[in-house]
Amino acid sequence: MKKKIKTGIIGAGRIGVMHTENIKRFIPEAEIKTIADIYADKIKDWAIGLDIENITKDYRDIINDPEIEVVIICSSTDTHAQFIIEASKAGKHIFCEKPIDLNIDKIKEAIKAINEAGIKFQLGFNRRFDHNFRKVHNLIKEDRVGKVHLIKITSWDPEPPPLKYLKVCGGIFLDMTIHDFDMARFLSGSEVTEVSANAAALVDPDIGKVLQDYYDTAVISLKFKNGVIGVIDNCRKASHGYDQRVEVLGSEGSVAILNDTPTTAVVSTKKGVLYENPLYFFSDRYAGAYIEEIKQFYNAIINNEEISVGAIDGLKSVEIGLAAQKSAKEGRAIKITEFSREL
Amino acid sequence: MKKKIKTGIIGAGRIGVMHTENIKRFIPEAEIKTIADIYADKIKDWAIGLDIENITKDYRDIINDPEIEVVIICSSTDTHAQFIIEASKAGKHIFCEKPIDLNIDKIKEAIKAINEAGIKFQLGFNRRFDHNFRKVHNLIKEDRVGKVHLIKITSWDPEPPPLKYLKVCGGIFLDMTIHDFDMARFLSGSEVTEVSANAAALVDPDIGKVLQDYYDTAVISLKFKNGVIGVIDNCRKASHGYDQRVEVLGSEGSVAILNDTPTTAVVSTKKGVLYENPLYFFSDRYAGAYIEEIKQFYNAIINNEEISVGAIDGLKSVEIGLAAQKSAKEGRAIKITEFSREL
Amino acid sequence: MKKKIKTGIIGAGRIGVMHTENIKRFIPEAEIKTIADIYADKIKDWAIGLDIENITKDYRDIINDPEIEVVIICSSTDTHAQFIIEASKAGKHIFCEKPIDLNIDKIKEAIKAINEAGIKFQLGFNRRFDHNFRKVHNLIKEDRVGKVHLIKITSWDPEPPPLKYLKVCGGIFLDMTIHDFDMARFLSGSEVTEVSANAAALVDPDIGKVLQDYYDTAVISLKFKNGVIGVIDNCRKASHGYDQRVEVLGSEGSVAILNDTPTTAVVSTKKGVLYENPLYFFSDRYAGAYIEEIKQFYNAIINNEEISVGAIDGLKSVEIGLAAQKSAKEGRAIKITEFSREL
Amino acid sequence: MKKKIKTGIIGAGRIGVMHTENIKRFIPEAEIKTIADIYADKIKDWAIGLDIENITKDYRDIINDPEIEVVIICSSTDTHAQFIIEASKAGKHIFCEKPIDLNIDKIKEAIKAINEAGIKFQLGFNRRFDHNFRKVHNLIKEDRVGKVHLIKITSWDPEPPPLKYLKVCGGIFLDMTIHDFDMARFLSGSEVTEVSANAAALVDPDIGKVLQDYYDTAVISLKFKNGVIGVIDNCRKASHGYDQRVEVLGSEGSVAILNDTPTTAVVSTKKGVLYENPLYFFSDRYAGAYIEEIKQFYNAIINNEEISVGAIDGLKSVEIGLAAQKSAKEGRAIKITEFSREL
Repeated sequence: MKKKIKTGIIGAGRIGVMHTENIKRFIPEAEIKTIADIYADKIKDWAIGLDIENITKDYRDIINDPEIEVVIICSSTDTHAQFIIEASKAGKHIFCEKPIDLNIDKIKEAIKAINEAGIKFQLGFNRRFDHNFRKVHNLIKEDRVGKVHLIKITSWDPEPPPLKYLKVCGGIFLDMTIHDFDMARFLSGSEVTEVSANAAALVDPDIGKVLQDYYDTAVISLKFKNGVIGVIDNCRKASHGYDQRVEVLGSEGSVAILNDTPTTAVVSTKKGVLYENPLYFFSDRYAGAYIEEIKQFYNAIINNEEISVGAIDGLKSVEIGLAAQKSAKEGRAIKITEFSREL
Repeated sequence: MKKKIKTGIIGAGRIGVMHTENIKRFIPEAEIKTIADIYADKIKDWAIGLDIENITKDYRDIINDPEIEVVIICSSTDTHAQFIIEASKAGKHIFCEKPIDLNIDKIKEAIKAINEAGIKFQLGFNRRFDHNFRKVHNLIKEDRVGKVHLIKITSWDPEPPPLKYLKVCGGIFLDMTIHDFDMARFLSGSEVTEVSANAAALVDPDIGKVLQDYYDTAVISLKFKNGVIGVIDNCRKASHGYDQRVEVLGSEGSVAILNDTPTTAVVSTKKGVLYENPLYFFSDRYAGAYIEEIKQFYNAIINNEEISVGAIDGLKSVEIGLAAQKSAKEGRAIKITEFSREL
Repeated sequence: MKKKIKTGIIGAGRIGVMHTENIKRFIPEAEIKTIADIYADKIKDWAIGLDIENITKDYRDIINDPEIEVVIICSSTDTHAQFIIEASKAGKHIFCEKPIDLNIDKIKEAIKAINEAGIKFQLGFNRRFDHNFRKVHNLIKEDRVGKVHLIKITSWDPEPPPLKYLKVCGGIFLDMTIHDFDMARFLSGSEVTEVSANAAALVDPDIGKVLQDYYDTAVISLKFKNGVIGVIDNCRKASHGYDQRVEVLGSEGSVAILNDTPTTAVVSTKKGVLYENPLYFFSDRYAGAYIEEIKQFYNAIINNEEISVGAIDGLKSVEIGLAAQKSAKEGRAIKITEFSREL
Repeated sequence: MKKKIKTGIIGAGRIGVMHTENIKRFIPEAEIKTIADIYADKIKDWAIGLDIENITKDYRDIINDPEIEVVIICSSTDTHAQFIIEASKAGKHIFCEKPIDLNIDKIKEAIKAINEAGIKFQLGFNRRFDHNFRKVHNLIKEDRVGKVHLIKITSWDPEPPPLKYLKVCGGIFLDMTIHDFDMARFLSGSEVTEVSANAAALVDPDIGKVLQDYYDTAVISLKFKNGVIGVIDNCRKASHGYDQRVEVLGSEGSVAILNDTPTTAVVSTKKGVLYENPLYFFSDRYAGAYIEEIKQFYNAIINNEEISVGAIDGLKSVEIGLAAQKSAKEGRAIKITEFSREL
């Protein structure tokens, strides 16, 4: 029997727990040796139940463990860049939750460390691994819609996060839209050259009065280097649930994906014909994508293959997000180059 | 038996023929006395088949006929303003195809004449009378989605018109999007304050090289006085047919309309589950809307009621269209007031 | 201008009024000269409004008028056979509402008269002219599903008719299912050889206690000469509206039709994703089919073409209906030949 | 940490492998101690990869192991009854794939053994645990459609099994429809009193000439004790995939479930609007149901709760299946009591 890939998890919050359980269930080639979390006590029972050997408060117990080959970073955003740098230097392969950082310089430092170490690095843009989005990507690649002209992404949350979170998340463009920016890049196969954002605080106008540059509803228009036009619409609140759709119009046709639902049940009564709402939030909607991304990460390590979503994708999305923020504030279109010059 | 409302039709092209036949079939209170068309010979057989008394080359045979109460203007756009002014002065009620004109001053002159004459004037924004769009409007009014936050309009043509037409139509914003601007105003119940357009020649890049400011694909973002954010996406070519959808997100829910199809047939084979394409073009898609608008026009005359879509709606849509044109060209958001000052 | 086809309408109830108005609007080659109704006074204003010359209580004013070429029979079922015989003898072309009669001998007499007169006769199986059902028929003919194996018809009314009607309508099989029997024959391209019905009074068990052999819910299984298996399910009450679907499974695929709806609006709220109910009842659902059937009838006369649904179709459907009735009562499958022998 | 429930798997074919992996992934409270398969060599590598201790050719190594509490029977149908009897006597809890047997006497013997042993027994009617079917069941229970009148089940396979299998499977009613009979009982909450089957060899008429009483296409009509009418349609071949739907009409509304698909992608081109086919076959379609049924089985053991689908459900379904077989052959409706008397 082959030796298992020893793995350390840093951060056992919601996402960390999910990755841990997915690895246990679906990656027989991996063994989770150590979990580090600043609240180590709280996760003890859960970790023991999963037969995990070490539970620690100190992430360095993972970085410094020569047996550990893979580090999964699920800690808070402000620690990502540092942990990436340290783990890279220790020669570990890294799977890191998005974003690397919200500061472009810090992202660049992390990328430098990754490149110097020559390790495998995958960023947690989970939607690229979703069955629906991936299908759109494949259909485009298979030339089913001809030359792409227009990419439309709808991405609505079921309800806004608490104010506490809103204050530190970096704003709608870096928190929510960043996923859509990555998706737009993924589907267009090109880079954004210009961003124009139209945004307002419509769901919670009161928060808009308190938080500077607070937006909860936005339309972002994109120009791509290859001519494609993109448009994203976001809202922090859609009563009916997590609404995640994409539509691509090309010279020979269009492809759209609709929402996934818990069941296909349809109830017809006097009041109308009622279908189920979309799956309520990301953990349900992208459950399969989270499994798929971690599978592909380990496969790339095992077979020494290219990883499909890397640190550069993290950089690009943040650049677009910062441009969108500026556009919404200043009421004008922002060229990515103009924006880059300012850094 | 009541006296019938004597009506004159100016212009018997595609739209003029349709209005004529709809009036014959569905407005028993109306009698079409005269049809004027510069190619009067060509329409003779058709008009006789409909028992229409007079066929003339000269529209003044209608304007000057004291018996005629209603004038339906379906001639080319450049004649609309003049015919409106003359028919208004002659005291006729007027139904006029959109747009009144592409020149704001001319539109204002026409509006002045209408107001002075105190006649009923209806503009042919037929989509307001479409069963689907009207339903969305009603659902918003009935507060089914709460406070409106976002209005999204998709409007794609099956294929571009001939180059000859493209040269004179005033560009995509004044030819195609003008309908969507009116729809956005209709659904938002508010006025546009700022327009931002992202447009390119993607369907026919070669035409883009020949015609100045030629766009066939566009995303237009709108700000409304009441805070609503709007976004319209247009394309001159959608292989699958005339794609006309709208989606409105509000504080309590969303409402969308899908396309109408010729039948509800679904064919399932090895290749997949195939539904029918949307109705191919506007004459099929809006057949019911054309009937409904003309019914409401005559009803308003018969019962002396308010008309729901008037000359001012024509003015506003052209203003937004011109602002969009400018935005696409200059690559910046255009405030409607900024734009108006320049006139 | 060509001479118009002078037409007489016998019976100006709901269906008679509809045919009259459809002929006025959509058959410019026809002229309705006379309407006969036993309540002639009640329809006077309506008929005058349509410029109809003669209004009479006596259907013989139509039969005996040598100018009249076409008779449209919309009177009560018990008069159909007699009027067909008289109009045939007078050499009129006949459009007759279904059924010809519920008694097989009477139907045969009517068929004999039609054949001897050599006139055009069309029976009002309107569903054959519906856009959806016709599409299924055409797709089968175009071999899109291969060799047909299974035909499934769902046909539910929104609510039961009044008891008074239930007492005289001949029972669910001859009143409701008769349309479905005709559709099954139309789609299979073959004749029924055996019928097995499973029926009960579930919607109104109390009526079941009063009326003998009363059923309001039924599943009818059919064997066809060409091997196809058919199944029909009926119910007198579907709260959500008039539910009319068909599904055909063949060797290479399947085709289904869904219901038509008033609009394509979709409302998404906390409660789910709500589509509109089917069009409420037959006059809305089959509005287009009623226009199409009368157009095809006049076209067949004008161009001397074969009529697609004739008196024999009326006979066959009643035979199947009577067999179903017997099967439901006796709890066994009934061969059509066994049944025929008894006559 | 709690002691794990030691489990033995008998039969490691397709289904056995699936149950084994599901237990490994999703039942942390269970430990698979032993796997017995007559081809033990073939499964060795796979079983070692899953850290399973014992691999044996002899099922008695499981039955006779006092440590083993739970037996999962996935061997061929003809062994089920015997293994149930032996495992019951050994006091093991049993999960057994359907059917218990095709012979009613043998089923009764097995039931007797189960009852005497007082162990937990669950039969593998996996569809009861499917998200869609369960939703229909729950909606009925929650009274969302009122009193149930009509239950319609469509169940089509993507393609017929090989002739070798067809010869021994017991015929379409005991092999395919048996699942639908159980579903009809589950949804109706009542027992079948009469069965009427209309069946033919349409997909493979040549097999029909060779195998006696061979049918591949069938419509089965059911009467239930509580008055509900049921209808099932089956076909061994639906080119578009595994088509599994249900529709229930009640006094206040109806509920239907549609098929699950791999993605929600929709491609619109000149040819139409193409959705994906249903998931291709049962292992994909019911992947979730297989997980859910095994979870509920272990939960019932752990919490000493009632099991929702037991041996009696296996008996009833076989009774209905045998009645359907007789009905199809003799061309008449079969009362379940009439059928039972004959045994």
